[in-house]
Amino acid sequence: MIWILHQHFLGPCTHYIMRSYFIISSIIACTSLSSVHAVKVNPLPAPVSITWGTSGPITVSNNVALKGTDNQVVRGAWDRAWKTITTLRWVPAVVDGPVPKFDPFPSTSAKIRRTNGVSSINVKIASSNDDLQHGVDESYTISVEARSSTIDVTSKTIWGALHAFTTLQQIIISDGRNGLLIEQPVSVKDAPLYPFRAVMLDSGRNFLSLKKIYEQLDGLALSKLNVLHWHLLDSQSWPVEIKAYPQMTKDAYSTREVYSHDDIRAIIAYARARGIRVIPEVDMPGHASSGWKQIDEAIVTCENSWWSNDNWPQHTAVEPNPGQLDIINPATYTAVSQVYNELSALFTDNFFHVGGDEVHDNCFKFSTYITKWFAADKSRNFNDLLQYWVDKSFPIFLSSAHIKRNRKIILWEDVILAPSHASKVPTKNVILQSWNNGLTNIKNLTSRGYDVIVSSADFFYLDCGHGGWVSNDPRYNVQANPDPSTPNFNYGAGGGSWCAPYKTWQRIYDYDFTTNLTTAEKKHVIGATAPLWAEQVDDAVVSTKLWPRAAALAELLWSGNRDKQGKKRVSEFTARILNFREYLLANGVLAAPLVSSPWLVKRD
Amino acid sequence: MIWILHQHFLGPCTHYIMRSYFIISSIIACTSLSSVHAVKVNPLPAPVSITWGTSGPITVSNNVALKGTDNQVVRGAWDRAWKTITTLRWVPAVVDGPVPKFDPFPSTSAKIRRTNGVSSINVKIASSNDDLQHGVDESYTISVEARSSTIDVTSKTIWGALHAFTTLQQIIISDGRNGLLIEQPVSVKDAPLYPFRAVMLDSGRNFLSLKKIYEQLDGLALSKLNVLHWHLLDSQSWPVEIKAYPQMTKDAYSTREVYSHDDIRAIIAYARARGIRVIPEVDMPGHASSGWKQIDEAIVTCENSWWSNDNWPQHTAVEPNPGQLDIINPATYTAVSQVYNELSALFTDNFFHVGGDEVHDNCFKFSTYITKWFAADKSRNFNDLLQYWVDKSFPIFLSSAHIKRNRKIILWEDVILAPSHASKVPTKNVILQSWNNGLTNIKNLTSRGYDVIVSSADFFYLDCGHGGWVSNDPRYNVQANPDPSTPNFNYGAGGGSWCAPYKTWQRIYDYDFTTNLTTAEKKHVIGATAPLWAEQVDDAVVSTKLWPRAAALAELLWSGNRDKQGKKRVSEFTARILNFREYLLANGVLAAPLVSSPWLVKRD
Repeated sequence: MIWILHQHFLGPCTHYIMRSYFIISSIIACTSLSSVHAVKVNPLPAPVSITWGTSGPITVSNNVALKGTDNQVVRGAWDRAWKTITTLRWVPAVVDGPVPKFDPFPSTSAKIRRTNGVSSINVKIASSNDDLQHGVDESYTISVEARSSTIDVTSKTIWGALHAFTTLQQIIISDGRNGLLIEQPVSVKDAPLYPFRAVMLDSGRNFLSLKKIYEQLDGLALSKLNVLHWHLLDSQSWPVEIKAYPQMTKDAYSTREVYSHDDIRAIIAYARARGIRVIPEVDMPGHASSGWKQIDEAIVTCENSWWSNDNWPQHTAVEPNPGQLDIINPATYTAVSQVYNELSALFTDNFFHVGGDEVHDNCFKFSTYITKWFAADKSRNFNDLLQYWVDKSFPIFLSSAHIKRNRKIILWEDVILAPSHASKVPTKNVILQSWNNGLTNIKNLTSRGYDVIVSSADFFYLDCGHGGWVSNDPRYNVQANPDPSTPNFNYGAGGGSWCAPYKTWQRIYDYDFTTNLTTAEKKHVIGATAPLWAEQVDDAVVSTKLWPRAAALAELLWSGNRDKQGKKRVSEFTARILNFREYLLANGVLAAPLVSSPWLVKRD
Repeated sequence: MIWILHQHFLGPCTHYIMRSYFIISSIIACTSLSSVHAVKVNPLPAPVSITWGTSGPITVSNNVALKGTDNQVVRGAWDRAWKTITTLRWVPAVVDGPVPKFDPFPSTSAKIRRTNGVSSINVKIASSNDDLQHGVDESYTISVEARSSTIDVTSKTIWGALHAFTTLQQIIISDGRNGLLIEQPVSVKDAPLYPFRAVMLDSGRNFLSLKKIYEQLDGLALSKLNVLHWHLLDSQSWPVEIKAYPQMTKDAYSTREVYSHDDIRAIIAYARARGIRVIPEVDMPGHASSGWKQIDEAIVTCENSWWSNDNWPQHTAVEPNPGQLDIINPATYTAVSQVYNELSALFTDNFFHVGGDEVHDNCFKFSTYITKWFAADKSRNFNDLLQYWVDKSFPIFLSSAHIKRNRKIILWEDVILAPSHASKVPTKNVILQSWNNGLTNIKNLTSRGYDVIVSSADFFYLDCGHGGWVSNDPRYNVQANPDPSTPNFNYGAGGGSWCAPYKTWQRIYDYDFTTNLTTAEKKHVIGATAPLWAEQVDDAVVSTKLWPRAAALAELLWSGNRDKQGKKRVSEFTARILNFREYLLANGVLAAPLVSSPWLVKRD
C-alpha cells in the first residue's frame, strides 16, 4: 500500500528500462554509458582507477599462494580473504554491465576461456614496518594480466595490501561451475581521498557485546573504513574496567556488561589485523556522572538533579542521567589524569577523544566549589569556567610524554562553538569534530586553523529518525493532522526525532562537505565520522542501523561521489551499494535491505 | 551528542524521580499512585481486571501439572508456557512497584513466605470445540489464592485458556534462588475489546523465511494478537506454490524463495497452536503482474510499461513493477477463480483478503480489451470498469460454497474510496481495511454500514520513516537547509518517506480510532492491523521493525489505552512495554531497544 507522495523518480532516461528485470543494470546503461561495457563486477568503494581488459575471463585456481612477503598481518589477511573467496564463491547480486553479457552461471560457463589460471598472488610492500597510525599510506595497486598465473599487488605499507585484498574479494567470483574467475584482465590503482574514515559506536547508552563489535569491524574492513571511534561510556553507564579505580564499573549496567582490559586489547587486535584504528572517547567534563561518582561524589556535580526537560531554562542535561565533572574541585584532575593515562596506555592509537560535548551551565550551579569560584570574582562567567577546564586538562592530555608519542586529542566542536565555550583552544595537536550547522561550522572551524572531522548531524547521524526516547511524551497524543499544509510533529515531520529525517544512503553519499572551503581550509578536513548514538541502539539493531549506510560514507571518503566527468554518480553507486548489502550479509554483517528484491539479479 | 529540540518531557511530576536509578518505577509512583502498592509485575497487554492480594508471595513448585482438560492444543500450549517459565525464571526488567519493595533476589529471598506451593494448574473450559475463527470467545480468568496449591483457570474456549497461559508466563517469576513465585494472591478476569487484532507481513516485496515468520508468530502469541494478515505476494514476486499453475513461481525471487503448500500448512498449524489465525491476501486487480503473467500475458496489462514516476500524470504504478489484471479479458476470471479456490482450500480461515488496493487508470490504457470496451460505449468511465471487476469477481469470492463456510472477504478501502472506484460494493460479507485519512475514512466507511479494520497509515504503518526506496533520487542532493523556518524534504521532515514520521509506540498506543463514531458506527470497527510493508524489510529487520511496537497495538486492542479513571495510561504502559521488549528478547523475538538501559532494573 504505497502512496504517491515523494515517489517520483528514477528520472526519464530510465524510461525503457523497466522492461528489464534488471533495473540497476539498465539505469547504469542509461546514466553512465562509459561504464557499461567496461565494468561488470563493481567493488565498493569504487577504486580511484580500475581498468578492465577485453580478452575474456581469467580462471582462478582453487589454491592461490601468497608470495613476496612473510609479514604476518598480510598473511593473516590473505588467509581470511582467500577463505572468504572460496567459501562464498560470490556471484554479484547486482551487476552494472548489460545482463546478457554477464552471466557466470552453468549454462554459459562453457564460454569461459580456459587458461592455466591464476595460482599465486605476489605482494610487493615497499615498507612493511609503518605503524597503523593517522596518515599511514594506504595506497595499493592490483594487476591481473591475460594468461597470467599470478595476481600482482604492490603497496607502500602492509595496510595498503590489506585494502587490495578486500578489493580482490569482490573481483574474484564464481565461474558458475564451482570454480572461480576474474571476468577480464584488470588493473587497479587506488588510494583514499581522506586518511580518517570512521564510524562511531556508543557503548554508554546501551551495552554492545564483543561479538557485535567484531561484526561491525568486519563491515568497516570490507568497506575500507579505517577508524572505529569508540564512545566508550556516557553519563548513563561506565562499562570500562579501570584498574586505578575498580569501583567505577559499579556503574556498568551489570557485571556482565563490562569491557575488561583484555576485552579491549582483543578488540584493538582484531581491528588492527584488518587495518582499523580504534580511538577511545571519554566525554569530559559534560556527559559525566556514572563511574566518576564512584571515585568521589565531590568530583561530579548535579548528578542527582532533575534534568528539567519540563522547564528548559533550568535544564541540567539534555537527557537522563545528568552529571558533569566539577571543573574547580582539584580532586577532579587527579581522577581525570589517572583514567586518561590508564586508557592511553591501553589503547594503541595516537589519537584520543576527550569529549567536550554539550556542557550545561545549570549543572555547575549545583557545585559549591564553582559557586564559590564565581563569588570570588564577579567578573567571571561560564566561558571563563570552561577556559579553566581547558587550561587545567589540556596539560594532562598533551603532556610531554603524550606529545612524545604524537598524541593528538579530538574534541567535539562545542568546546569552542557552544553558547558557553572556552575562548582560547590551541590548534596544535587538537582536532575538532563538527556536528552542528553542516557546512557553516566546518567553514568556521577550518578557517580558524583547526583540523576537522566532519560529523554533520544533518547528513551523518545514523541514529536519527526513530522518534524520541523520552518515554511518556504526550505530544504523540494527537488524533488528526492539526495543519495539513505544513509538516508538524506527528505528520510529515520528525515525530520526536530531534535530527529527523532518517539519513538515507543517498543523503550521506551526496554530502559535499568541503564545497564552500578554500584550498587552505580543505587541507584541514582530515575526514569524517558517522556516529551511531545508542539511546535506541543495542545488539538487536546496531548492525542494521549501521549497514549498508556506512558504506555510502566509505565510498564518499575513499573515492568520492562523482564520476570522471565530475557528475554525481549516485545511479552508478546504486548498483554498488545494493550488491554490497548482499555481500555484507554473505560475510555475516547483518545489513538492512534498501529496496525490494527485483532490483537484484535473479537467482536459481 | 543529543540536541535539545523535542526532548522536553517526562512531565513535572517526575521531578523528584530522577534521583532514583529506577526511573520507571518512580514515574508510575507519580502518575498512577493507585497501582504502586498493588501491581508489581506488569503483564502486557494489561488485563481488563487484575487484583493482587497482600498476604505475600506464593511459591510455585518446579513441576506444575495440568489438570481439568485433555485438549491437545491446551496441553501443548501449557507445556510451552511451563517450559518458558522454568527456563527463563523471569525477573521483570522494569517494575512499577517501589523498587525497595520488589526485589526477588537472593539477599531478600528469606523474606518469602514458604508455603507448600502451587503444584498444579486446573483449567476448566466450557466449550472445547469452538473453532479458531472470527469472534470466537477469548475470555479467561485466573485465580491464585493464598496457601493454594493450584492455579485455577477458566475459559469459554481453548483459545481463552491459551491467553491465560501467556499471562501466567509473565506473572510466575524467579524467587531469586532458582525457585519460582507469584508475588501475591492474584485474580484476573480478562477478555479483549476487539476480536480482530493483527499485524500484516508482506512477502511479495522481499521474501521472508519460515523461521522469521515463526518468530513473529511467537511475538503475536505473547502479546495476545490473534491474526496474521499475510500479504503473500505483490507485483514484484509470486512466492506461492499454485498447483493449478506451477509456472507462477517462475516469478519467485528464486527457487529457494517459494512457499510450498506444506510450508503454508506448517505456518497455519504453528499459528493455530498459539491461537493465531492466518489470513492470506492476494491483491487484485492492482499490484498484479508477477505470477499472473506466467499463466497468460494477456490477463495482465501494462506490466511492461514504464511506471512514469517522472511524469506522474502518466503513471501506471506507484513503484516498480507495474501490472494489473485485465478486467475485461474473460481469461482473467478463470485464473482468478483457480488461484482463489486453491488458496481458499489451503488456508483454514473464513476470511480471505482479495486486495483492491491502488488501481491505476493509466495501466488499463495498455489493454486492447479495455480500450475496445471503452470504445464500445462512450458513456463508460473507470468507475464503471472497477464496478465490472466487482460484479465479475465477487461471485467467485463469495460463491455459495464459500458462503457455506462463512466466507468474508477483506478489501482495502480503495475499492470504494479511491478516485476511480466501484459504485456498488455490498456490505454483506465484505470488510474494508482503512489506511487513508485516519478518523475521516473510518467514519465514512462505518457510517455507510461497512465493517472496518483500522490500519490508518498515520498511526499503524510500521514501515514508515526510513526514507524512499527509489534508488537514485536526486532530491537528497541538497547541501544546506533551504528553509530553516519550515521542515522540508531533507530537514526536519520525512526525507523521502511518504508516510513519515516513524510511528513510535507512543503514537500507536495513543490512537483513539473510534473517537468520532456513533455507537452504531463503533460496532462496525472489528479491530485493527499494523502493516509492515516490505520494500525495505526482509529477514534482517522484520523483527526489530515489528517489535516491540506491535505490542503497543496489542494492548490498545486488548484492554485499551486508558486507566479506570479514563485517563491515558502511557506512563504506566511505559513500564510494561520496556519490560516486554526484554521479555520478547528472552523469548527469541528480536525486538528493538526503545531507551537507554538506565530505565531497566539493574542486574547483578
